Amino acid sequence: MPIKAFVFDAYGTLYDTQSVSAVTDEAFPGQGDYITQLWRMKQLEYTWLRSMMGRYADFWTVTREALAYTLNTLGLKASDTHFDAIAEAYNRLTPYPDAAEALESLKAYRCAILSNGSPAMLSALTASSGLGRHLEAVMSVDAKRVFKPDPRAYELVRETMGVAPEEVMFVSSNGFDVSGAKSFGFRVARIERVTPAALSAEIAASAVIGPQTMFKAMRMQAEALGLDADHTIGSLKELPALAAA
Amino acid sequence: MPIKAFVFDAYGTLYDTQSVSAVTDEAFPGQGDYITQLWRMKQLEYTWLRSMMGRYADFWTVTREALAYTLNTLGLKASDTHFDAIAEAYNRLTPYPDAAEALESLKAYRCAILSNGSPAMLSALTASSGLGRHLEAVMSVDAKRVFKPDPRAYELVRETMGVAPEEVMFVSSNGFDVSGAKSFGFRVARIERVTPAALSAEIAASAVIGPQTMFKAMRMQAEALGLDADHTIGSLKELPALAAA
Repeated sequence: MPIKAFVFDAYGTLYDTQSVSAVTDEAFPGQGDYITQLWRMKQLEYTWLRSMMGRYADFWTVTREALAYTLNTLGLKASDTHFDAIAEAYNRLTPYPDAAEALESLKAYRCAILSNGSPAMLSALTASSGLGRHLEAVMSVDAKRVFKPDPRAYELVRETMGVAPEEVMFVSSNGFDVSGAKSFGFRVARIERVTPAALSAEIAASAVIGPQTMFKAMRMQAEALGLDADHTIGSLKELPALAAA
Repeated sequence: MPIKAFVFDAYGTLYDTQSVSAVTDEAFPGQGDYITQLWRMKQLEYTWLRSMMGRYADFWTVTREALAYTLNTLGLKASDTHFDAIAEAYNRLTPYPDAAEALESLKAYRCAILSNGSPAMLSALTASSGLGRHLEAVMSVDAKRVFKPDPRAYELVRETMGVAPEEVMFVSSNGFDVSGAKSFGFRVARIERVTPAALSAEIAASAVIGPQTMFKAMRMQAEALGLDADHTIGSLKELPALAAA
């Protein structure tokens, strides 16, 4: 069955979550790397735990909870204003360099985002980055009050766009999302931002394995859950070729 | 309502998951710390992801998947026999030094384990450590085919022991488990194995924040989910005093 739509994950796929480092390091000089990594890992953990406990709160709440947790582990206090300013970094993430060109090259297809982000966060992101004009829909899991990889989140694509799972190429860099999309029934392209060879070389070259390397190890490798992507690509620019194949 | 039962988490609460380090470091000298931390973090992540995807597999399978993931990130290969031998470390975890004495001191109460572990893993643990003789029940979430913090997992306590949630003091060191138990309705004692002050001092003293410190930051601090423990204790030996209060 031909591909009708490309549906993209936002955080880590079109937008670089590491780009909050500029803000975290300015806020707490020398600790930006640690804060950036722990914040992102806890943010995702809280989406999973809240989904499992049946205690959904939107991604903005979860993002702030994860930041509060992270600062607590350093014994850091931030004023309300300062805290808000740091959290806002998630509304101004930098798109990956290949994102705009890839979306441009996929004009012949329906393109959309399906993200954990709250509607307000996604509006801020797609407006500030200019990627929004390439997108037919920006779907937030908030409509279902569960986060990925709960299958109800992925069901939004059919409900919103009227396409069957096998007509969709879902694109994500996040292992949990690749697994969830594959489990749901989408065709899946995994964008590999860090190759296994690059990671193991980085680990071998580290006297002490630091937070950013630990993040790459935890979050940027293919999962071992038996739910592998159909395609692994090194750049989003490879997507048109996948659809044609 | 008086406390009738103490229900303990196993991994990280009665048994020290860090004790696999001896095995991982012998298997891959110099890399034991990294392997131990990433393995445990991925193991828990996979319990959450499998629960959310409706793809339950028991904790032994998940433990092995997480180990496979971890070795992959280092580009390491292990023979089947060697892999099995490393995974087996989870069946021979060392109890924390305060575990046996605490259980002994709680003879007047009904005591049990509720764990993510598979029945076979829990049998191996409680037999090898000798803690089993203090326990009325060893409950595995396997009976429900979901992992903690899904409320169906905690429901096992009522079904197995016939005690209401408010008659139970649930004891865990794991933030996700404290939150889940509190969300479910148990009274909860959090055993704090690493204080916030100790962690922030450790971070401040680190030129590079290594895997073990990152683990303490990710997994051994109170969560910021608004589901706090009723009691925070520094040793399991404080439990009898909580029940009497």
